[in-house]
Amino acid sequence: MPHPYDSLEMAAIKGPHSVKWSLYGEEVLPLWVADMDFPVCAEVVQAVAARLSKRIGYPQGAGDPELLEAILAQQEAMGLKGLGRENLWLTTSVVPGIYASVLGLTSVGDEVITQVPVYPPFLNALSDYHRITRASPMAIGPSGRWEIDFDHLESLVSPATRMLLLCNPQNPTGRVFTRGELQRLAEFALRHRLWVMVDELWAGLVYEGEHIPFASISPEVAQRTVTLTGPCKAFNTAGLGGGVAISHNPEILARMQKATRGVMGHPNVAAMAAWTAALQHGQAWLEDTRNYLRANRDFLGEFLHTKLPEVKYIPPQATYLAWLDFRALEIEDTHRFLLEKAKVALNEGSTFGTNFKGFLRLNFATSRGVLQEALERIERALRARGTMLA
Amino acid sequence: MPHPYDSLEMAAIKGPHSVKWSLYGEEVLPLWVADMDFPVCAEVVQAVAARLSKRIGYPQGAGDPELLEAILAQQEAMGLKGLGRENLWLTTSVVPGIYASVLGLTSVGDEVITQVPVYPPFLNALSDYHRITRASPMAIGPSGRWEIDFDHLESLVSPATRMLLLCNPQNPTGRVFTRGELQRLAEFALRHRLWVMVDELWAGLVYEGEHIPFASISPEVAQRTVTLTGPCKAFNTAGLGGGVAISHNPEILARMQKATRGVMGHPNVAAMAAWTAALQHGQAWLEDTRNYLRANRDFLGEFLHTKLPEVKYIPPQATYLAWLDFRALEIEDTHRFLLEKAKVALNEGSTFGTNFKGFLRLNFATSRGVLQEALERIERALRARGTMLA
Ligand SMILES: Cc1ncc(COP(=O)(O)O)c(C=O)c1O
Ligand SMILES: Cc1ncc(COP(=O)(O)O)c(C=O)c1O
Repeated sequence: MPHPYDSLEMAAIKGPHSVKWSLYGEEVLPLWVADMDFPVCAEVVQAVAARLSKRIGYPQGAGDPELLEAILAQQEAMGLKGLGRENLWLTTSVVPGIYASVLGLTSVGDEVITQVPVYPPFLNALSDYHRITRASPMAIGPSGRWEIDFDHLESLVSPATRMLLLCNPQNPTGRVFTRGELQRLAEFALRHRLWVMVDELWAGLVYEGEHIPFASISPEVAQRTVTLTGPCKAFNTAGLGGGVAISHNPEILARMQKATRGVMGHPNVAAMAAWTAALQHGQAWLEDTRNYLRANRDFLGEFLHTKLPEVKYIPPQATYLAWLDFRALEIEDTHRFLLEKAKVALNEGSTFGTNFKGFLRLNFATSRGVLQEALERIERALRARGTMLA
Repeated sequence: MPHPYDSLEMAAIKGPHSVKWSLYGEEVLPLWVADMDFPVCAEVVQAVAARLSKRIGYPQGAGDPELLEAILAQQEAMGLKGLGRENLWLTTSVVPGIYASVLGLTSVGDEVITQVPVYPPFLNALSDYHRITRASPMAIGPSGRWEIDFDHLESLVSPATRMLLLCNPQNPTGRVFTRGELQRLAEFALRHRLWVMVDELWAGLVYEGEHIPFASISPEVAQRTVTLTGPCKAFNTAGLGGGVAISHNPEILARMQKATRGVMGHPNVAAMAAWTAALQHGQAWLEDTRNYLRANRDFLGEFLHTKLPEVKYIPPQATYLAWLDFRALEIEDTHRFLLEKAKVALNEGSTFGTNFKGFLRLNFATSRGVLQEALERIERALRARGTMLA
């Protein structure tokens, strides 16, 4: 049975309102920046319109009370318990929270550890503000998945190490870390007295495994942790913004606020109304969307397996992102090659960490037809190049 | 003929979505924070709903092209010419732009001049980031209006002076500075090689006089100036955010961006859609609203003149704010007195600068009925106190 997402009205997506669809020009299929080509849940749009039709005055500084309650309920249901409103700080979106955590919890010259490949703003926040990045490369391990190298992690620690930046579910590998992995990370952070920023923005889009909030591992590690999340990945509201920093230790939030005072801007009421409605009424929409995404993920896997086995791919357990290893094809600049020869735009791997040249990130949150067309274009371009291995 | 604003549905305004109406509890009439109790222009609400119904993906980093063009056209019409898109930087709202200008154009310990009384975030941005405030008090001059003391201004300059923060139209005095005054300020800034941040957010709500963009005074001063504005005062969209920093000198914008990189968050699409629609279709609504506000202003003047002549008041040329001098009544804490005895919440004068104890700011952007009720409550409380002079 066809799904409505199979026949998206592309005219409503293309054009100058979308950075994804406007950056590379008409003829390019954009499978890069992380938003979905799908319309937003109708209840969400209605809630925003209803909220605005009354009046658009300044909201309370802490945010709409019903949103705060809905976030607390959602976190509690995922296992993050014992929180009250004083443990939440609404941010304009998640990226400002990443920056605020780095600014509030570290100083110039401090060393900060993060796994790579990772969502580029983790790395940019550190370099923009002159913190020193200690990158711990993940590798495909015995499980057949991208795994943390705990020995290497340990070797990175120096007296100047202050903080660990963690992404779970992980962008771009799509890993959902197990309780065992999170316990080892928590033990590591406690032993070295590190702050932890964990970005759990993708927790709503898990296909396999279970999302475990890092701060739920132990009360001790919760005192050192700030958790970031928001509505934009699960509910496709990126353009509205909205995010939250959560900590059992309100001192962490106070430091983040102080370090960014005045610069961030207040939470906007459209994002708050959308987020509240999404949490209250968006579950059926989310489940349907997640199923569509899972099927796209599997379609992608099947396509690569049969047509492009040279492109190494481990299906993500979460997210709508595929982390593709093109290195075996030995192309000088794969991103540019695909852009010019296949007219498909992916994300360049080296922005996710050094040593990831030859990798690309593909966003499969589009109609099946667009995904298929993009993959066929890639296949044709590679065959025309005449260097396919298979 | 009654105006629809005469019979606002207060149930739609009260409650936890509004900081104005929720901070002080049910029985208090809130005439403080600067938003209007009026609903937003219907075209604006429709435009936001239409924009969201498609898709809410990430916008272009620079913002929606049609918004940028609408801002350029608006500025051009006011006399700020020769600008292109590279002269605009969208901010989450105006306050973050104020902070970004201070952070980008000055260093810790630099001295910054501003007229007082002034919108409190001007002062907070300086103290939060350890800049030194050199406050130049305005006084009621020969014109019968609040005037800049140019001699005092001159006396404030030291080798460490770097910047002038200007608010025009001025919050809280409601002054619209004349071309002559702006020329003297420009000459002052050029002679001492100062950066200028001018906040022109209130330019859409002028009753008398003409709003002259400061950067239009001369090309030389334009190279030293960043102009801030946004949709929220004229069009009552404060809850959505949205702002713009404008400069003929793109280096200024680059410095502001660098100083706040990653922290501010991207412009949100609801604010952009609202602002675009307001500029394109909001003029009739704005004129009607401005007329209502002017009549409220005059009603307030008449009331004070006849019933409370001890309260000194100079009608604002712009804004919906009245700067009231209660000092003759010799009340220990006027803000608290009115809150407790009259159940009316105004803004405390001392937050607008030292030496303004005894002043209060009143927001008259409400229904005539609420304004009258608030004034009558104030009159009754003062009479009950038994210290009225008249
Ligand atoms: C891990 C992660 N964090 C944050 C973001 C961005 O969040 P926001 O748009 O709320 O700033 C993304 C977007 O792709 C992401 O993948
Ligand atoms: C002069 C001035 N600038 C800025 C602001 C706040 O603007 P925004 O809500 O866009 O941050 C106000 C609000 O009262 C104001 O009076």
